[in-house]
Amino acid sequence: MALTGDIVIGSERLSGRAATFRAVDPATGAALEPAFAFAGEAEVARACALAEDAFDAYRDTTPEARAAFLEAIGDEIMALGDALIERACAESGLPRARIEGERGRTVGQLKLFAGVVRAGNWLDLRVDTALPERKPLARSDLRQRHIALGPVAVFGASNFPLAFSVAGGDTASALAAGCPVVVKGHPAHPGTGELVGEAVRKAVASQGLPAGTFTLLLGANETGAALVRDPRIKAVGFTGSRGGGLALVALAAARPEPIPVYAEMSSVNPVYLMPGALAARAEALGKAFVGSLTMGAGQFCTNPGLVLALAGPDLDRFVGAAATAMQDYAPPAMLTPGIHAAYEAGRKALAGNGRVRCVAEGKVGEGANRGTGALFVAEAADFLADEALSHEVFGASSLVVRCRDIEELVRVTRKLEGQLTATLHLEPSDADLARRLVPVLEVKAGRILANGWPTGVEVSHAMVHGGPFPATSDGRSTSVGSLAIRRFLRPVCYQDLPAELLPEALRDAALAGLPHMMDGKAVLPG
Amino acid sequence: MALTGDIVIGSERLSGRAATFRAVDPATGAALEPAFAFAGEAEVARACALAEDAFDAYRDTTPEARAAFLEAIGDEIMALGDALIERACAESGLPRARIEGERGRTVGQLKLFAGVVRAGNWLDLRVDTALPERKPLARSDLRQRHIALGPVAVFGASNFPLAFSVAGGDTASALAAGCPVVVKGHPAHPGTGELVGEAVRKAVASQGLPAGTFTLLLGANETGAALVRDPRIKAVGFTGSRGGGLALVALAAARPEPIPVYAEMSSVNPVYLMPGALAARAEALGKAFVGSLTMGAGQFCTNPGLVLALAGPDLDRFVGAAATAMQDYAPPAMLTPGIHAAYEAGRKALAGNGRVRCVAEGKVGEGANRGTGALFVAEAADFLADEALSHEVFGASSLVVRCRDIEELVRVTRKLEGQLTATLHLEPSDADLARRLVPVLEVKAGRILANGWPTGVEVSHAMVHGGPFPATSDGRSTSVGSLAIRRFLRPVCYQDLPAELLPEALRDAALAGLPHMMDGKAVLPG
Repeated sequence: MALTGDIVIGSERLSGRAATFRAVDPATGAALEPAFAFAGEAEVARACALAEDAFDAYRDTTPEARAAFLEAIGDEIMALGDALIERACAESGLPRARIEGERGRTVGQLKLFAGVVRAGNWLDLRVDTALPERKPLARSDLRQRHIALGPVAVFGASNFPLAFSVAGGDTASALAAGCPVVVKGHPAHPGTGELVGEAVRKAVASQGLPAGTFTLLLGANETGAALVRDPRIKAVGFTGSRGGGLALVALAAARPEPIPVYAEMSSVNPVYLMPGALAARAEALGKAFVGSLTMGAGQFCTNPGLVLALAGPDLDRFVGAAATAMQDYAPPAMLTPGIHAAYEAGRKALAGNGRVRCVAEGKVGEGANRGTGALFVAEAADFLADEALSHEVFGASSLVVRCRDIEELVRVTRKLEGQLTATLHLEPSDADLARRLVPVLEVKAGRILANGWPTGVEVSHAMVHGGPFPATSDGRSTSVGSLAIRRFLRPVCYQDLPAELLPEALRDAALAGLPHMMDGKAVLPG
Repeated sequence: MALTGDIVIGSERLSGRAATFRAVDPATGAALEPAFAFAGEAEVARACALAEDAFDAYRDTTPEARAAFLEAIGDEIMALGDALIERACAESGLPRARIEGERGRTVGQLKLFAGVVRAGNWLDLRVDTALPERKPLARSDLRQRHIALGPVAVFGASNFPLAFSVAGGDTASALAAGCPVVVKGHPAHPGTGELVGEAVRKAVASQGLPAGTFTLLLGANETGAALVRDPRIKAVGFTGSRGGGLALVALAAARPEPIPVYAEMSSVNPVYLMPGALAARAEALGKAFVGSLTMGAGQFCTNPGLVLALAGPDLDRFVGAAATAMQDYAPPAMLTPGIHAAYEAGRKALAGNGRVRCVAEGKVGEGANRGTGALFVAEAADFLADEALSHEVFGASSLVVRCRDIEELVRVTRKLEGQLTATLHLEPSDADLARRLVPVLEVKAGRILANGWPTGVEVSHAMVHGGPFPATSDGRSTSVGSLAIRRFLRPVCYQDLPAELLPEALRDAALAGLPHMMDGKAVLPG
C-alpha cells in the first residue's frame, strides 16, 4: 500500500491539503517521499469532537470486544509486513533486527493489555453489602468500579517508532481502559506512523467501533498544544524531552479544567559499582557498560548516563576497560538531525567543562548524524558543585563519578533528581552497603536492578517504567507494563442502584466471575 | 487538660510565641480562650525537615506497627473524653450528637485504615518470575510493590472538625500509606485541633515513632502556601472552597517539582426526580429533600444544591411540600462568621437574579451566624443561560430546575460541571430514562445513588467521595473510604535483587501470606 501523507479523521480523508514536510533518512540525510500534511486547529477540534462522540459507545464495549479490538490492531500491524519494517528502518536509521524486535514488543504489548482487559483486575470492583439493620444508621448497598477518564491525547516518541508511538504503550493502555485516543505522531517517522495508524483504523472498522475511537494527526508544536488545550481531552501521554514534557504539563495545568499529564521525560539512570563487584570483575563490567551505553546509539530513556563508585584502582580498571571499548565504538546514525545536534552540543559542553575530563571518545562515524560516543570522569565534589553535570545527554555519553568514601556516595545519591532506574552491581560482600543504598534509591527511582543493565524494559505485570519527577511528571504511575492502564481510570460508586441500572460487571451474576472485594475481603472467581 | 495555644513541632513546644487569635463560638459570637499562635515560614520549614527525617523510618514500619499506631490515635482521641466534645461543639456550633457521631466516624476511619494496612492489598504486590531460558532474551525476576510518596501536607476542613480535620481521612490515609503528615489546622476550631493533635503526638510517642511523623500547625494563608511550596512535601490533601483549592493546585503546579494535590472543592450534587417517583411520592420527596438540604445547616460537601425534574403538576406538588418544610426550618448557627457571610451573599445573589424565583425562605434565626434557608426555582433554559446558577452556595439553599422534556433534562445534565454525587429518585417505571441518564452521570460524578440523599457518606471500601473537576482537583481518587490510601503511593519495581535486599513483603516467604499477582494471575493467601 502506498503512503499518501493525507490527514485522516474518522472516516474522512482530507486529500489535497498542503503537504508541508517529508521524513528524512537520518543515515543519509535524504528526504523520503511522500510529503505529509500537518493538521491545524480545525483538524484537532474535529478529531476531539469525534473522540468525544465515540467515548460512551467505546467505553461501554464488553471486555471481550475491547480485547478483540486490541488483538486486531496487533494482527493488522503484522499484516503490514515488510513495508512497515522497511519504512521504519529508513525513517529511524535503526537496524532491521531492532525494528523487527520492536514490532514484536508492540504487538505483544497489545496482547498483554487484551489479557488485562479480560482478567478484569483493572476494574477494581468492590461491594459493601447493605446493612439495613445497622444502628444508628443503616448502610446502603455500595458498589464501586473504575471507568475510563475520557479521550486521551498521546504524543509519539522518536526513539521507539513502534513501541512508544502511534500504537505504543500509551495508546494500548488508554484503549484498554476504554478511552478513545488522538495521537500526535512524531514527525521523525511520519510514514511509519501512517502505516500503523491505518492498521488501527482497519481494526476500528473491522470491530465495528465508532470511527472517533482513534485518530492520528501530524503537526507542529502548536498542533500538540491545541490538542492538550481541547476541553474534550481528559489526559495526556507523552515520552520525550524534559522541555517538551514540561511544556505539556504547563499547558494542561493552565486549562480551565486541569488534566493529568503522564510525561516520561529524562533520566540519567545511575549505575552503582559496589566495591566487591568492582574488585571481582572491573574489566567485564567496563566492557558490558559500554555495550549498554552505546546500544541503539544510546537513544534509550534508560541509558546509563551516570556511573557512581568509590575511587581507587578497581574503578581505574573499570574506566580503562570502558575507555577501550568506547574507542572501538563505531556509531550508527542517530534518529534525527535534531537529536544528533542536541547530542553533540551536550557532549561538547561536557568536554568543555573544567570539572570533568574526557577519558575516551568513540570513532568518528561515517555518514550523516553520527554521534561520537564519549566517556567522562569527574570527582564527586565537582559533580555536587555543578548541577549541569547531572543533566541527561541523550545519546552514547556517560559520566563516571568518583567518590572518596561511602558517605560521599550516599550524599551524591541523595542529591540526584528522580530517575527511571537505578542499577547496583554487587557481590555478596557488598550487601551492607547495598542495604544502605536501596532505601535511598527507592525514593529516587521507579526501578532498582541488580547485576544487569537498565536498557532492557520488560513489558509485563511487575514492570515500572516511571519514577519521581523529573523522570516523569507523575511518579504515581508507569508507562510500560500492565499497571499503565490505571493512568486512564477513575473510580465511581453506585449506591442502592437497582440491579438493572448497575453496570454489568457490578451485578451479582457477573461479580461471581470477576475478581472483586466483598466487604473488604478480596475474592477471586472460581 | 488545659489548652495552651502553643506551637508544637516534634518534641519542641514553642511557648510564649505571639498568640494572635482566638476561636469564636459561632452560636454566640463570643471569643473563646486561649489565644493561639500562628506558625510562620520558619516553623513550616522545621516541621517539614522533621517530616523528611522521619520518612524513611516511618515508611519502613511493619504493617502491624503502622496499624497499631492508627488504632492508638483512635484510642487517644477517645481518651480525650468530654473535653473534646465540648470544645468541638463550642467552636463549630454543631450539636453534641453530631460531634459524638463524628468522633465515632473519625475513630472508625482510623480503624478501617489499620485493617487496610494489615490486609496488604494496597501494596499491590506483583511478581514476574525469571525466565532464564526464554529466547531471544531471558526475562529477569521482577517484583513490584507500592511505597509512600513522602511527607504529605493536609489542610483541615471547617465543616468536619474531626472527620476531615487534624486526624481525619486525609491524615489517616496518608499515615496508612507510610507518609509523615504536616497538618495546617483550620482556624475555625483551633482548640479542637490542639486536642486531637496532642492525641496524635501521644500515639507517635507511645508507639516509638519519630517525632516528625506528625505535626500540627496553625497559620494564615501564607503559612499554608509555604507548606505547599516546601520541597520536602510530596502531596497535598485539602477539603474546602473552590478558591482555596485552586490556589493550592496553582502553587503545587508552579513548584520546581510539581506535586499532586487532592483538593475536594465544590459540588451542587444534582438530584433527579424521575416522573414515576414524582407521581408516586412528590410530597414525601419534598419533605425529605429539605431534611437533607438543611441537615447541619446545609454545610455538607454533598448537600443537594440542585434539583432537576420535568415541569408539571407533580413537580409543583414536590415544590409545594418542600416550600412548606423550608418555611418551618429554624436555622442553627453556621460554622463561622465567614461561612455565614458567604452563604448570605450567595443566597441574596440568587434572590436578586431575575432568572430565578424564591419559592420559600426558612425562619430567620435567633442569634449570631444563622443562615436563612432558601428554595429557588428556575426554568432549564434560564439555568443554561446563566452559569452563575450552577455554582455552589454553601449552606441550606437549593435550586429546582424545571425541564420542559427529557431532551432538555439530558442537555442540562451534559452541561453540568464535575460533581461529588448525583442522585436519582425513581420507580420501576422510570428505568428507561434512568438507563439513559446513568452513563451521562458516570462521567460527571464520583457517586451515583438511587432513592436516597447524598448527605450520608459511608466510610467503607466501595465509597467514592471524589469526582471530576471541579468537584475535586483530581478525579482519579477518593478522599473517603479505603481506596483513599492509593493517593499517597507510587509503584517501585525490583529487578533481580538478591532476596536479602528485597523489601520484606516481596520475599517469597512473606508473599505467601499476602495478596499478590504472580505472572499476571491474582493469588490470595491461605
